[in-house]
Amino acid sequence: MSLSVEKTSSGREYKVKDLSQADFGRLEIELAEVEMPGLMACRAEFGPSKPFAGARISGSLHMTIQTAVLIETLTTLGAEVRWCSCNIFSTQDHAAAAIARDSAAVFAWKGETLEEYWWCTERCLDWGEGGGPDLIVDDGGDATLLIHEGVKAEEEYEKTGKVPDPESTDNAEFKIVLTIIRDGLKSDPKKYRKMKERLVGVSEETTTGVKRLYQMQETGTLLFPAINVNDSVTKSKFDNLYGCRHSLPDGLMRATDVMIAGKVAVVCGYGDVGKGCAAALKQAGARVIVTEIDPICALQALMEGLQVLTLEDVVSEADIFVTTTGNKDIIMVDHMRKMKNNAIVCNIGHFDNEIDMLGLETYPGVKRITIKPQTDRWVFPEIKTGIIVLAEGRLMNLGCATGHPSFVMSCSFTNQVIAQLELWKEKSSGKYEKKVYVLPKHLDEKDFLWSLLERLSLVEWGEVGRAVFFCRRIMA
Amino acid sequence: MSLSVEKTSSGREYKVKDLSQADFGRLEIELAEVEMPGLMACRAEFGPSKPFAGARISGSLHMTIQTAVLIETLTTLGAEVRWCSCNIFSTQDHAAAAIARDSAAVFAWKGETLEEYWWCTERCLDWGEGGGPDLIVDDGGDATLLIHEGVKAEEEYEKTGKVPDPESTDNAEFKIVLTIIRDGLKSDPKKYRKMKERLVGVSEETTTGVKRLYQMQETGTLLFPAINVNDSVTKSKFDNLYGCRHSLPDGLMRATDVMIAGKVAVVCGYGDVGKGCAAALKQAGARVIVTEIDPICALQALMEGLQVLTLEDVVSEADIFVTTTGNKDIIMVDHMRKMKNNAIVCNIGHFDNEIDMLGLETYPGVKRITIKPQTDRWVFPEIKTGIIVLAEGRLMNLGCATGHPSFVMSCSFTNQVIAQLELWKEKSSGKYEKKVYVLPKHLDEKDFLWSLLERLSLVEWGEVGRAVFFCRRIMA
Amino acid sequence: MSLSVEKTSSGREYKVKDLSQADFGRLEIELAEVEMPGLMACRAEFGPSKPFAGARISGSLHMTIQTAVLIETLTTLGAEVRWCSCNIFSTQDHAAAAIARDSAAVFAWKGETLEEYWWCTERCLDWGEGGGPDLIVDDGGDATLLIHEGVKAEEEYEKTGKVPDPESTDNAEFKIVLTIIRDGLKSDPKKYRKMKERLVGVSEETTTGVKRLYQMQETGTLLFPAINVNDSVTKSKFDNLYGCRHSLPDGLMRATDVMIAGKVAVVCGYGDVGKGCAAALKQAGARVIVTEIDPICALQALMEGLQVLTLEDVVSEADIFVTTTGNKDIIMVDHMRKMKNNAIVCNIGHFDNEIDMLGLETYPGVKRITIKPQTDRWVFPEIKTGIIVLAEGRLMNLGCATGHPSFVMSCSFTNQVIAQLELWKEKSSGKYEKKVYVLPKHLDEKDFLWSLLERLSLVEWGEVGRAVFFCRRIMA
Amino acid sequence: MSLSVEKTSSGREYKVKDLSQADFGRLEIELAEVEMPGLMACRAEFGPSKPFAGARISGSLHMTIQTAVLIETLTTLGAEVRWCSCNIFSTQDHAAAAIARDSAAVFAWKGETLEEYWWCTERCLDWGEGGGPDLIVDDGGDATLLIHEGVKAEEEYEKTGKVPDPESTDNAEFKIVLTIIRDGLKSDPKKYRKMKERLVGVSEETTTGVKRLYQMQETGTLLFPAINVNDSVTKSKFDNLYGCRHSLPDGLMRATDVMIAGKVAVVCGYGDVGKGCAAALKQAGARVIVTEIDPICALQALMEGLQVLTLEDVVSEADIFVTTTGNKDIIMVDHMRKMKNNAIVCNIGHFDNEIDMLGLETYPGVKRITIKPQTDRWVFPEIKTGIIVLAEGRLMNLGCATGHPSFVMSCSFTNQVIAQLELWKEKSSGKYEKKVYVLPKHLDEKDFLWSLLERLSLVEWGEVGRAVFFCRRIMA
Repeated sequence: MSLSVEKTSSGREYKVKDLSQADFGRLEIELAEVEMPGLMACRAEFGPSKPFAGARISGSLHMTIQTAVLIETLTTLGAEVRWCSCNIFSTQDHAAAAIARDSAAVFAWKGETLEEYWWCTERCLDWGEGGGPDLIVDDGGDATLLIHEGVKAEEEYEKTGKVPDPESTDNAEFKIVLTIIRDGLKSDPKKYRKMKERLVGVSEETTTGVKRLYQMQETGTLLFPAINVNDSVTKSKFDNLYGCRHSLPDGLMRATDVMIAGKVAVVCGYGDVGKGCAAALKQAGARVIVTEIDPICALQALMEGLQVLTLEDVVSEADIFVTTTGNKDIIMVDHMRKMKNNAIVCNIGHFDNEIDMLGLETYPGVKRITIKPQTDRWVFPEIKTGIIVLAEGRLMNLGCATGHPSFVMSCSFTNQVIAQLELWKEKSSGKYEKKVYVLPKHLDEKDFLWSLLERLSLVEWGEVGRAVFFCRRIMA
Repeated sequence: MSLSVEKTSSGREYKVKDLSQADFGRLEIELAEVEMPGLMACRAEFGPSKPFAGARISGSLHMTIQTAVLIETLTTLGAEVRWCSCNIFSTQDHAAAAIARDSAAVFAWKGETLEEYWWCTERCLDWGEGGGPDLIVDDGGDATLLIHEGVKAEEEYEKTGKVPDPESTDNAEFKIVLTIIRDGLKSDPKKYRKMKERLVGVSEETTTGVKRLYQMQETGTLLFPAINVNDSVTKSKFDNLYGCRHSLPDGLMRATDVMIAGKVAVVCGYGDVGKGCAAALKQAGARVIVTEIDPICALQALMEGLQVLTLEDVVSEADIFVTTTGNKDIIMVDHMRKMKNNAIVCNIGHFDNEIDMLGLETYPGVKRITIKPQTDRWVFPEIKTGIIVLAEGRLMNLGCATGHPSFVMSCSFTNQVIAQLELWKEKSSGKYEKKVYVLPKHLDEKDFLWSLLERLSLVEWGEVGRAVFFCRRIMA
Repeated sequence: MSLSVEKTSSGREYKVKDLSQADFGRLEIELAEVEMPGLMACRAEFGPSKPFAGARISGSLHMTIQTAVLIETLTTLGAEVRWCSCNIFSTQDHAAAAIARDSAAVFAWKGETLEEYWWCTERCLDWGEGGGPDLIVDDGGDATLLIHEGVKAEEEYEKTGKVPDPESTDNAEFKIVLTIIRDGLKSDPKKYRKMKERLVGVSEETTTGVKRLYQMQETGTLLFPAINVNDSVTKSKFDNLYGCRHSLPDGLMRATDVMIAGKVAVVCGYGDVGKGCAAALKQAGARVIVTEIDPICALQALMEGLQVLTLEDVVSEADIFVTTTGNKDIIMVDHMRKMKNNAIVCNIGHFDNEIDMLGLETYPGVKRITIKPQTDRWVFPEIKTGIIVLAEGRLMNLGCATGHPSFVMSCSFTNQVIAQLELWKEKSSGKYEKKVYVLPKHLDEKDFLWSLLERLSLVEWGEVGRAVFFCRRIMA
Repeated sequence: MSLSVEKTSSGREYKVKDLSQADFGRLEIELAEVEMPGLMACRAEFGPSKPFAGARISGSLHMTIQTAVLIETLTTLGAEVRWCSCNIFSTQDHAAAAIARDSAAVFAWKGETLEEYWWCTERCLDWGEGGGPDLIVDDGGDATLLIHEGVKAEEEYEKTGKVPDPESTDNAEFKIVLTIIRDGLKSDPKKYRKMKERLVGVSEETTTGVKRLYQMQETGTLLFPAINVNDSVTKSKFDNLYGCRHSLPDGLMRATDVMIAGKVAVVCGYGDVGKGCAAALKQAGARVIVTEIDPICALQALMEGLQVLTLEDVVSEADIFVTTTGNKDIIMVDHMRKMKNNAIVCNIGHFDNEIDMLGLETYPGVKRITIKPQTDRWVFPEIKTGIIVLAEGRLMNLGCATGHPSFVMSCSFTNQVIAQLELWKEKSSGKYEKKVYVLPKHLDEKDFLWSLLERLSLVEWGEVGRAVFFCRRIMA
């Protein structure tokens, strides 16, 4: 796509695939609202008082239907919002269209190149003259990274006149980040520092992004307060576990139509995400094998009747491989060469470095046959058989299906809203330093009470209603 | 679509949505072949001797990727084939395109009108001058029905000069059947009787079609031998059970993206299909309630921890409703009016008469909002809330997803191939009278041995291989 | 025990372990009645008319609490009853005591020797001067066997004067059968033929006994009509499946207290019993491996995510082994020698020939350490480690626990009562020849309707009640 | 029993049911050792250096076979040990006998009265002249309680001359505690203070005991350091969850033989214990309903397809009730009166105050019928029907079965050993103050590594072995 910003009739910027899909997006957003009681309760409780009045929020988070409900919750609470996706494949174009038309500045489409991706991220952070956003909603930490790298480069440039050199790194994606920063330096050598100055804080959604934040906290390089939403019980024990239990088979089925029953499936990693994936595959009738390096998680897998082995043990026997570790270099090209014909290889961890895509792409003579977008068969020349890689090694549930369903995202996103409210409320109090904070448990639970309460009104005298009623009576 | 037959460069007739999708279809057919060991074993064993040489086979069965592998197995064994789908929504257009281009005459596309559907069925049965097919592969019995109704009308016409009157029935679909027959009577008053004369027999795939055949057997009106493939253990206990366990959640997720966990789901009917559906929903985290009128099945549900209630008991509390009964008038418009907002209503039984679509469509003031094809929200005027109906009440797994996965269809379709081979081999022996036969158990099992054997070669020294090796040693 | 018959004050014969346990037995019988609605419904419906008035019924069936409710149902319906157990370990002594004291002649105790066992069987069949019973309730076919062997021997003796020679067989148990018959021949050379004359028929409970009956039918040697109760849907799909799912882990836990989660368990055979066992072990957290020679059952196991291997493949890795095949020589002493230390070996099939106990007992230098009754550790001399064998290779659920629970036995036993009623009603009609019959489906279902109806009255307006109410309305 | 201490030939004190059961106990202890790799690894690693040389350890923890392996691990590491049970029903008499004869001073038998229970506790803490123990292994905190109450009373007595008045409390059990302390005051008014002086610390096993400790920490009344073993991941996420998943159905089956499939079961509380119980019941085929006041736990239950209701909603419909809350007054006599006939009521939480036994016992006209020890039927006079209460409302898995299986207790107990080693090692360092500590994560994990390593040697080249090998390589 040509990277030029477009504007709505009201003058709001955007760049999406096809604005004409906005009506379709709106219909699905309306369905999702019914499934997202936590967010709708936030609107009911906080909407009238507009607590975000005057706040600019930039979000880097999969631009899906569910995220659309989050964005419109933020705007209902008074915020101005700019948004980009945090993965090149995770945007739902009809969701992006509806938001772009109706509610916020959006820069996202399904199937971005890496250059387009970082252009979108930069657009999302760029609020024009007055600097950047007041608050960031981040997922994976790319928005946070860009600001940190930008500030570092500006300081270096001010001190030494040296600009970042994209050739200084082997990492294809980081080359692009450095290029963007370098190119920006000339026009505005204080751009990222102005952003930093204005920024009240970030709330971060996922394990991978949180790890980055803690590393910066440890090295003293974190530039603003951060709330770790990922480790809210109501996030990691729901979204990671139940979300993946839903969306892993969804992605497998949409991408390959393959029967899961009777297959041998390998789940690499048995954390919350791995537990959700293993449960889904077992229940669908697969025989599940887990690889794990943490002895406690390994023993949990054994207690559930799963076999624990190394990848080497099973690489040539299994039919389906899923990486869930949050670490890199889990399935290498040498593993892939030993797999059965049409073995399915996919990743449901945040970043695309669990599967050695570079090794695969550069394997001599390898042939890529695209069955359909996000479903590729890779044939090795010497053995003539091939494997099927989903979503080019990126998050398969968002690349091949539509990600986690609305109800569980309501839990996660209500935590995001609460975290953003907390940061904004305390923006001048000094309560939050340049550190990483976990949401207090009483806030963490809040969205569940809300979720349940909201259902109460829908269900009238139903089961959850009674449960909540009872809970409230007790807790009062 | 304009109902005119097209021809390939080689002169074979077809009518499909878009022949340019043939390459995509071919890629997916090749993937499916790896998952369909039974059919591939049939090709290996019987292909060289061409047992179907000279046979014309007409098939009325969902024109999917899996069916494509079945069709090409029949052609590999020497048959000439014409095909149509047995459901207006079940065709996969890329599969139809690939077959039309490469292998057989196909008349099928996703989203036919009822008129188009019966036009396709008629085209499928029409082999030109020499009468109809030698063999029929049927699913639901529509091809068989058309011939039986045609013969009846011709005989009546010959005797009394009376032609069928489409206005004699309230059933919208049967009106069309009568119209087709009436219109054909004038041009060729012996058309269906010529078909009957030539026909060696039919093999029928599904419960609903089999019921029709037994009714005709009882009334003495069955015109040719029939093999009931549905009741092969290797069909009903696999396809119905494991197939639906896979494709029900697949259809739900593709159509609605709704989280199944935490929902209350009602499964109407607890036969093999219902058992598969209930298992899938329970495993995905729903609370499942079964309605059932057979006390044995009801007690089986209770033994699995499922609640057994009447639909009336739960109609206003549940989130998801699935009909699996094979009977009609299960969920009526009066039920639907009492449901929760956005309750999902769908059918996975063969025919579309389990859900009262006529009652819904004609409800005064009802508003239909199409979210996307095969996903409609119906809003009742007085309550302002609505329900979501999938695939217009037809088979939701084929309408909203891609039907059962290849591996389980390999079991069912290998039974079909064996049944067709048996009918053709015995065409002159008088072994089969105008009755309904079940496949002998030693044939029924055959495809499993094949399935397993085929996997053996893939897996080399793997688990299934050893199992089969052991089985064969024992059975030898 | 000294094998002398004792008499109650009312003159009824018995031989049990300890009559003073009758009160305890009575308490548990009363609890069981609440869980056996089918039998209680039989009492309510047929009790007043005493349809069994004048009938003598001999039963050879595990003398448990549940069987006590069956026996007292038969007596409530007017029958006179004599009973023995069909397994040396399966008697519950308090149940035997209560029945002996209150209701019927019982010859059974837990831990009989084989000689004692056959003495009990003979006592059970011996009704004194007038010959034998009118009806037999059999489980495994031992009562039926004794009569058939007796008749054969008497006919041979009459013709040739030759008496049976116990030394003519290697089978330890059959030696005893022959001895009993030989010893009886002298005192009454027409004893078994008089039994045969009087006998109206037998109803047989289990797969193994049914196999024997069909073999006799095929060879034309069956002496009286038989009803195969085992293959009633309401028996094999409930008792075999759900009964074993309950009682296998119960037996394992009572015998060994071993944690099932995390263990590797091998289930030999994947029929209804095997399916129940595998489900129980999987759900308890074991990794389950199935051995099977029937390809259809093997593929069913794979569809449930179970591994299918040969015993040889896993003999040295697994922790728990269960035989469920109904065949003999499944786990041989050579397998046992290769097992891990403290591997648990047990059988839940009817007969004790699935595990090679003879091979184990006669293994040179093997040492048997009885942990507690029915739990033995066998240590092999050369490897110094040992295995744990339950119930000496006999039915472990009855040997180590209390067998199937009341509710599921109510289903099986109601079928027995219906079969007995049917045989008795048709005793003079000639309806039943010397063949094996399956209970008609409308009778097969009867007990479920009853079960459910009975629960209806207990539950008042509960879920099952509503279900039944609905069923009845539909079926009326 | 007469409360007089007995002595072994070597002069060690004990009071057990029947010393002649020691051989049987020894056999089962030997079996358990194979299932408790963590403890056996402790012996292998620490046994030679005798780190507990000179240490006196008093334990108040269910005197089972598994605990016997713990005790003998402590003695193998050099400790002198005295032991009592922490529940009147939880002792396994053969385990107590074996330990009393071979290894440690034991005061415990199954079925103690409350007076006997506290006498045993006092004996366990009384090491004669030199004061009390150096270390306490506690479960539920009764040993800790006795010392704290004793010290309090002594101080009051020294100050005011006032002795504790048993009549000052309504709590039957606390009356006994006060009586013991009062009676001891006269003979030795410094007894408990001498204990306190000597005590290095306590390690506490269970949720309930830990709650007490934190309360004392908060009020500043804790007299010595405490390590909270319960909240080690390797305890609460294993013992509580997987242990109960195993032992709840075990207890139900041994006590009642009732079929779990098809029943409606209510689990009060959905913490780790409740999760294990609900999983077990669901898997056995019950329909499970959860009551819960924590909204997060309630939503977890919903995500697993369980219904969440209040006890009032279901009290008259359910068949089985289990309390797991750790709170008191969960099932009251008014609930029990509304239950179905023969509803089963039991508790698997640590203390016996979850079920209102006092209300039941004092209900006017109520009749108690003991079916067998620990299984009572209570009949209400006005309705003539009754309920079945297990283990008199105490821990049903220990009262009616044998508690958690060895393998999972190995995890918990290895944490205990590590905690005791840590306390003893740091006894003079001042590292631990009078506070409650959680075991550091690197120690928490230790026993799993050990467990797995130990299995490695057993399994040779098996699956767990490979997993551990891999883990170790990574972690090295």
